[in-house]
Order: sequence, then structure tokens, then C-alpha cells
Amino acid sequence: MDKKYSKGKEMIDTIHPDASKALIENLKDIAPDLGRFVVEFAYGELYTRPGLDLKSRELATVAALTAMGNAGPQLRDHIEGALNVGCSREEIVEVIIQMVAYAGFPAAINGIEAAKEVFQKIG
Amino acid sequence: MDKKYSKGKEMIDTIHPDASKALIENLKDIAPDLGRFVVEFAYGELYTRPGLDLKSRELATVAALTAMGNAGPQLRDHIEGALNVGCSREEIVEVIIQMVAYAGFPAAINGIEAAKEVFQKIG
Amino acid sequence: MDKKYSKGKEMIDTIHPDASKALIENLKDIAPDLGRFVVEFAYGELYTRPGLDLKSRELATVAALTAMGNAGPQLRDHIEGALNVGCSREEIVEVIIQMVAYAGFPAAINGIEAAKEVFQKIG
Amino acid sequence: MDKKYSKGKEMIDTIHPDASKALIENLKDIAPDLGRFVVEFAYGELYTRPGLDLKSRELATVAALTAMGNAGPQLRDHIEGALNVGCSREEIVEVIIQMVAYAGFPAAINGIEAAKEVFQKIG
Amino acid sequence: MDKKYSKGKEMIDTIHPDASKALIENLKDIAPDLGRFVVEFAYGELYTRPGLDLKSRELATVAALTAMGNAGPQLRDHIEGALNVGCSREEIVEVIIQMVAYAGFPAAINGIEAAKEVFQKIG
Amino acid sequence: MDKKYSKGKEMIDTIHPDASKALIENLKDIAPDLGRFVVEFAYGELYTRPGLDLKSRELATVAALTAMGNAGPQLRDHIEGALNVGCSREEIVEVIIQMVAYAGFPAAINGIEAAKEVFQKIG
Repeated sequence: MDKKYSKGKEMIDTIHPDASKALIENLKDIAPDLGRFVVEFAYGELYTRPGLDLKSRELATVAALTAMGNAGPQLRDHIEGALNVGCSREEIVEVIIQMVAYAGFPAAINGIEAAKEVFQKIG
Repeated sequence: MDKKYSKGKEMIDTIHPDASKALIENLKDIAPDLGRFVVEFAYGELYTRPGLDLKSRELATVAALTAMGNAGPQLRDHIEGALNVGCSREEIVEVIIQMVAYAGFPAAINGIEAAKEVFQKIG
Repeated sequence: MDKKYSKGKEMIDTIHPDASKALIENLKDIAPDLGRFVVEFAYGELYTRPGLDLKSRELATVAALTAMGNAGPQLRDHIEGALNVGCSREEIVEVIIQMVAYAGFPAAINGIEAAKEVFQKIG
Repeated sequence: MDKKYSKGKEMIDTIHPDASKALIENLKDIAPDLGRFVVEFAYGELYTRPGLDLKSRELATVAALTAMGNAGPQLRDHIEGALNVGCSREEIVEVIIQMVAYAGFPAAINGIEAAKEVFQKIG
Repeated sequence: MDKKYSKGKEMIDTIHPDASKALIENLKDIAPDLGRFVVEFAYGELYTRPGLDLKSRELATVAALTAMGNAGPQLRDHIEGALNVGCSREEIVEVIIQMVAYAGFPAAINGIEAAKEVFQKIG
Repeated sequence: MDKKYSKGKEMIDTIHPDASKALIENLKDIAPDLGRFVVEFAYGELYTRPGLDLKSRELATVAALTAMGNAGPQLRDHIEGALNVGCSREEIVEVIIQMVAYAGFPAAINGIEAAKEVFQKIG
């Protein structure tokens, strides 16, 4: 378990270290195990799997969160994560624009607003 | 317009020629313009954009449709499309498994069932 | 209460008498009150309100169910209902096509498939 | 009708009296009947039914609103309502964490944020 | 293409000129083509189609966005658009209330809050 | 890990042994790790947590899957699971009916259809 946690911690810190810290901090008093599950399971089990490179994983996540349209904070975290693992701003914008076809214009426009916020924060 | 349609037709036939034929045939009596919009706009405008390779576009679509969980036929078409543009079965399976983190187990399990159906059909 | 039920029953039978009968029959052994709520509340309270004509109410319902994409049987019932209260096939098809903009192509395509089924059944 | 309204008013005031007052106040100028339907139908008809205790009803509502992820104010109202009918903070947190399995991590994390806000407000 | 853009621009400016300006401005640096697609495709292709009057189109959009519940800014834009093309406040409120039946009370209540905001802004 | 798997296997077999067998069998060739994650994480980590009894967990899951409306097979599995852990048919029906308030009539009606199927299968 500890090994999976440490693998997950390394992965989440590679993808988005600030989001990682904020998440664990936010959950520590009310639902610390949920923070542990994110690290251990989502990052330690899912993101560390072979068979798909990290850039594709992050673009797929940006696609899904844009299409679902109900998880703004996580969408912004993964836009930042996509940049951190080497996706270009253009690739991120393209994935979001493509969601017009699957989830409609509002989802894509709100996804672009999220990207704009992240790009401006990073500078 | 004709130029955009022909660009889109070439793209949709690259991605999934059988789905393309079935779609246009299905819609031709009741809503032919909807078939035209798919070709012209979704494929002629969105899929032909530079800035993101076709494999990433298909994986992003598989991610979104798996997560949304309410468009079975289109998910199967894009799993086939992903294969046709060079994604491996493993990459497709990985994108679907990753959706556990964003849309839960039922969405991912139903996505895998769709992949299984497509892989078996293709052999 | 009886008065609201009878007002609702009259309304549901105006909109889709076959669906009404099937619904009440289907629910009568397992959840008869749910059938009563549909008649009394959805039709007796909501559909009988002044301020919006019945055709607009049915088109709005077709729009919502197409966009949500997870209630096939009810979408077909309301496409039939829309026809019964005087919407043309063209108006129904147009509302569904417009959903491309708000819920993407798969939702609209699956909505058109539903309309096709209903139109063919009716002849 | 008056009887159902008064039964519903008693129920909504048992579950969350502040939310009840705010809701009726908010809707009174623009859509007073919607406020009446909430009281009469949602609380007077649904919540007063036998066959399931009130604590289970509130936990089921917290589960559904967490999973849907698009109704923040109502989720907070029902977290408070769950506390008011005797659910423990731990039970609420557990229901929300369980939604990881059905709606993914972002839905659960955002649900926990809602719980945190409510718990802090109450003290 | 220019012709479709100008037709779309005229349509979007008929429906909601302020939203149109804000959208194009917002997207111009980060995803100008997305702004173009909205104008050219959503308004130039979809809203200009014959077969359904503009008031019905706007009411259908308000219905869909209320039911989906995850696109607040666009819902407000289309409530304003519905007013601009001649829908009455009462018709808009009625469409939103009707969504109780298809998407539940929280979606309808949040839709009414959006309408209230728009009506107050307009005065 | 093995310990968590065996704890999860025991739990899933308590809740729905047939579904458990079918799931693992279905996934074993295409995505065996997904089957393992369901057992280890969803059942071994989430369902085995203290703080909420198993009946409440199953009712919460039935609520969420009914409200989401896009995971029919899993809804049926958890209706059966709810029965297996001691929920009465009436409690299950009540949770589903209550979803009218949060996700509308179609979601609740389709949930009741699922319950009917399961109750008939079991006899």
C-alpha cells in the first residue's frame, strides 16, 4: 500500500504538484481517505499504467471533464497538468474545441474559459 | 461549402468508412442536413484542424463518449475509428479504464463492453 | 385530488393516449403511486398551466429529452405526443437538429433515430 | 391541496427550515407555484411516504445530488437536512465518498467540499 | 463561408447582441475559430433553418440548458435571447418550470434563479 | 494487496455473487485489471468502510444510478444487491420514486422498470 501511495504521490506531483498539495490539505480534516484514494488509486494505479503515454492520458482527461461540464476545479487542474507533462497550449485548446461535436458549444466554450484562466495564471 | 464537404468526407472515410456510409444512409430521408453537418462541420472543420494529431483526437473522443455514457452507437464507431487511425487496442482500453477516475466504474465497464464488441466484430 | 387526477388524465390522453395506458399498466403492480404522480402532477399540474401553449410544451420536452440522451422510451412518447398536439414532423426534426449546438452530434443523431422510429410506426 | 401543502410544509421545516424559508422567498415573485410544488409534491407527497425512513431518504438525496454534480445549492441544503434528521457527519461523508465508484473522483471531491462548507457553517 | 458567417452574425445579433460581442471578444485570443464556429455553424446553419420559428427555437434551448444544468452563462444568454425574439417572461418561466418533470426540482429552481437574474438586469 | 482483494471479493460476493462472477468473467480477456479494481477498490476499499451500514450504501447506490440514468446493467445489479443485504422491495421502490424530485420522471420510471425486471427474475 505504502508503495502504491508513494508511486501515486510521485505521479500526482509530476502532473500537478500544486493541485496535489491543495487537495490533500483540503481533505485532511474531513475525508483524509478520499485524498489517499486519489493518490493511491487514481494516480498510483491508473496513471502509472503502461500502454498509454502521460500526454494522451492528460488530453483524455481534459476531453472528458470538458464534455461532462460539471467539474470546473478539476478541469483547471488537469489543463495545468496537461501543460506540465508536455502538452502544448494548442493541443489543449484543440481537444476542448473538439468537444463541440460531442457535448455542444456551451461545454466547449466553458472549457476554453477554464483554459484561458489557467494560461493567464501561468503567464 | 463543397470543398469543406469533400474534405470532411475524406476525413470521415479515413476514420470510419462503414459508420460514415451508415450515418448518411440513415439520415438521408429524415434529416439529410444533419448528415451533411456531421461531414462538413464535425469532420470537415473540427477533425481536419492542425495542432492535434488524429490519434489523439480519436482517443479524446473515446474518453468523452465513455465518460458521458449515453451514446453507445457513437462510442462503438469511434473505438473502430481509433483503431483505423492507428491507435492500438491497448491504448483504447487504457483510455476507457482511466475514465473510472472521472465518471466512475459503470461508465468504464460499459465502455469496455463496447470495445469488446468492436474488437470481436473486427476479429 | 380526484379533480387534479382527472384533469391530468384528460391531458395525458390528449397528448399520448397509448403511452398513458402503457405507463399506468406497467406501474400498477410495483409503483402505482408513481403512475398517479405522473398523471396528477406532471400532466395535471404542469401541462395544464396557462402561459405556454401545448405545442411549445411538447417541443420543449423533445428538446430536453434529446439533450439529456438517457431516456429513450420517454423521448419516443413525447415525439408522438408532439405530433398529437399539432406539431409537424418538420418542427420536431428541427428541434432535435438544433440540439447539436447544446448537446453534440450523438445526442441529436440518436434523437433523430427516435423520431424515425415513431414516424415509421405511425406511417 | 391545503392539507398536502401543510403536510409538506411541516416536512420541509423538519428537514431544513432555513432552506425552506429561503426557497419560498426566492421564488415568490417570479414562480410562486414552483415553490408550492416543492412543498406540496416533493415534500408533501414524496418525503412523507411510508416505506423508507427519513434518514435513508436524505442520504439517498445526498448520493444522487453528489453524483449528478450540477446542483450545488441543493446538495448543501440536503447535507444540512441530513444532519437535521439525525444522520451523522460520518454517514454523510461516507455516502459522498462512495460516489467515487459511480460518478468519479471530481464529483466526490466537490461533494466533500460542499459538506465541509455546511459543517463549518453549523460549527 | 463569408456568406454563412454574415448570415450567422445577423442572427446572433438579432437574438442576443451583447452575448455575441462578449463571446467573440472572449475567444478572440485563445480560440478565435470557436467563436467563428458559433456564429457560422450554430447561428448561420442551425438557427437560420426554416421549419421552426425563432421563438420556438429559443424556448427549446432554454428547456435543454435548464435540464442539463451545467451551462449557467449560456442559459442566461438564451433567456435574454428568448426575450429579444419575442417570448414573454411568462413563457420562459413556464418552460423552466416544466423541466421539473424531466430533470427534477434542482434543475428547475436553478433555471428560475437564472431567469430572475436576467429579468432583474433588464428591469 | 491480496488482502484487500480478498476483503473486496468477500464483500462483492455478499452483495451480488452472480454479478461478481459475470463481471470478472466478462473483463478477464480484455481488461482484467478493471475487474480487479472493482473488487479491490470499489468493494475492498469503499464498501468495507465503517461509518455507514451496508443497506444504506446499497440504497445510496440505487439512488445515484437511478438519477444518472445511463448505467442500466449496474442499476439492476445493485437493486439485486440491495435485496441481498436486507433492503425490502418497498425500500428500493421508495428510493427510486424519490428520484422524481432530483432527476425527473423518466429517470424514476426507468428505474422502476429495472426494479421490476429484477424482482421478476428473483420471483
